[in-house]
Amino acid sequence: MGEKMSTGSDKPMEIERKFLVPELPADIASYPHKEYVQGYLNRNPVIRVRNEGGNYVMTYKGQGLLAREEHNLALNEESFHNLLPKCDGIIIEKTRHFIPVSDSLTAELDVFKGELAPLQMVEVEFESMEQAESFTPPEWFGKEVTDDPNYHNSVLSQKGMKK
Amino acid sequence: MGEKMSTGSDKPMEIERKFLVPELPADIASYPHKEYVQGYLNRNPVIRVRNEGGNYVMTYKGQGLLAREEHNLALNEESFHNLLPKCDGIIIEKTRHFIPVSDSLTAELDVFKGELAPLQMVEVEFESMEQAESFTPPEWFGKEVTDDPNYHNSVLSQKGMKK
Repeated sequence: MGEKMSTGSDKPMEIERKFLVPELPADIASYPHKEYVQGYLNRNPVIRVRNEGGNYVMTYKGQGLLAREEHNLALNEESFHNLLPKCDGIIIEKTRHFIPVSDSLTAELDVFKGELAPLQMVEVEFESMEQAESFTPPEWFGKEVTDDPNYHNSVLSQKGMKK
Repeated sequence: MGEKMSTGSDKPMEIERKFLVPELPADIASYPHKEYVQGYLNRNPVIRVRNEGGNYVMTYKGQGLLAREEHNLALNEESFHNLLPKCDGIIIEKTRHFIPVSDSLTAELDVFKGELAPLQMVEVEFESMEQAESFTPPEWFGKEVTDDPNYHNSVLSQKGMKK
């Protein structure tokens, strides 16, 4: 019936930091990875459809950069293929590598293909703002771009890489 | 980062019953109503975008008839107009009337326009399965269609009314 609006406590918040990666870590092949294909049905709010290595998900993201509301909703393969052609702009293809950077934190390193190559970016998600602020990036992390909306995948899919 | 999938307790379940309405209640003009415009980006799972009298919402519904998972996510006017042309099939336009049928229950009576006229359907949403099963429909409720997927708005938008 659709009169209940999701609010408050059922909205998980995302807290993450994002960095460019000038050079891949030498041992990258030893970590797990998945192939991602994703597009954006809408940018504000972000509505993304994604194939995460055979797992199909639609994600809704509210506004904000360091912390924003996020819902992940299951799709099946058929619905993914119905929705992907409806996306605006570029379809993003990338390999995501999962690399532990502490006992409790796993960095997600994205190596983009096609129109967005040779972009390489890494994200780390945190449990709290305190943990995010006290995080010391490993040596192979480059410039931090957490606060730069040009490095949102949704914006990259619209504008491509700034030259 | 998108690795968290919504599960379990943060999934509100919908429990509702749905009936045809052969004749509108005589006092219908005395109850509040809103104009709805809605389309379906996808049908399985249902992903609906709707203008509810100037309130813009995207709704995701999992599977099931009497009880199914539902998430309502806020849109703005611009995103609604970006998404509506991406919908499959018919765009549904209807007037929804809100009519109390007990101290705690409000029936939502939909009077369809355009291609789906003269369809009239009423839904009641319940707090529990026990409440749904013990509900006594008012006289003006017609045939129950809760278990008939042909009366899902998503199916109506695809096939129109069966003649």
